[in-house]
Amino acid sequence: MQEPHALEQLIRSFSRLPGLGPRSARRLVLELIRKRESVMHPLIRHLQQVAEYIVTCDICGNLDAQAPCTICCDTRRDPSLLCVVEDLGDLWAIERSRLYTGRYHVLGGVLSAMDGIGPSQLGIERLAERAGAPEVAEVILATNATVDGQTTAHYIAERLAGLELRITRLAQGIPMGGELDYLDDGTLGTAIRARLPA
Amino acid sequence: MQEPHALEQLIRSFSRLPGLGPRSARRLVLELIRKRESVMHPLIRHLQQVAEYIVTCDICGNLDAQAPCTICCDTRRDPSLLCVVEDLGDLWAIERSRLYTGRYHVLGGVLSAMDGIGPSQLGIERLAERAGAPEVAEVILATNATVDGQTTAHYIAERLAGLELRITRLAQGIPMGGELDYLDDGTLGTAIRARLPA
Repeated sequence: MQEPHALEQLIRSFSRLPGLGPRSARRLVLELIRKRESVMHPLIRHLQQVAEYIVTCDICGNLDAQAPCTICCDTRRDPSLLCVVEDLGDLWAIERSRLYTGRYHVLGGVLSAMDGIGPSQLGIERLAERAGAPEVAEVILATNATVDGQTTAHYIAERLAGLELRITRLAQGIPMGGELDYLDDGTLGTAIRARLPA
Repeated sequence: MQEPHALEQLIRSFSRLPGLGPRSARRLVLELIRKRESVMHPLIRHLQQVAEYIVTCDICGNLDAQAPCTICCDTRRDPSLLCVVEDLGDLWAIERSRLYTGRYHVLGGVLSAMDGIGPSQLGIERLAERAGAPEVAEVILATNATVDGQTTAHYIAERLAGLELRITRLAQGIPMGGELDYLDDGTLGTAIRARLPA
């Protein structure tokens, strides 16, 4: 025998997920079976809840138990700020910083000629519509500091250029706790060029 | 808001699994939601099947849809061979080689003073009982070639020393496709000492 059928299927299911291969999926399944009560059953329950209740917000692309999402519905949030992020993980990261009080727009990816992702796949027209609403005063382009992320930010900035808006992007420089000796040249160069009065 | 409650719970559930941290768990959950039909629903189904049907074999410690397991029940397998492995993953690896036709004994770990795992936690007495059965002629100690694995093999060999048995262990040497220049000194030394006529 190889792995019994049900185990084999489960391992294959897990190994399709990002960051997991057949070997790590196998380890993971063994651990789940070892901790059936304390880990496996809660995991199944939580997966079912998410599969059943979590929906995509049709305004901003966020995931939540309601659509429109809690952020879009929250009247205490500043409607004049619109923060454009690549992915939901980025939205969560910004929320964790507890410094941003505006709304979001989740692109769900970046422009990539290689992967055939153009402006229409990212719904950039829908973003332009939202950005054109009278209450919006600033669009923050919070895409990643990668080539694709910056290209996408550049494209969006050009697309929104006609509108009466401040268009900003995140500051680049030395990360907190960063040691100069370990930083890449690009970051250090940017930090020197964008130096501030002490 | 942070991640909505259900998502947060699911991410926390995943990040408890070996090899996954909060960040990779987050990525994984996003991917699951993106592929709700094609990945998430099958995963839930397979998890439920395993949670419901997979049991531990009370003879050898294998996992299967039946107990005693398919291997222990298979009369075509050689009852005179007993292969001792640390973990179920090792059993599967040996089965994949399709060269072993005997039965198994899954220890479920290795002796480790650090982690407080002694002979009783590993059920070595139960192994000694099985090894003492009249049909068993050879016990193969297929623990890993790590310090803990070899210590465990040594301990078991001593424990079984009184019985009328061949006690063997896996050959050590150059792995298939191995290049000498990249091998560690220990492996190369073992391979030279255990050299065979060409």
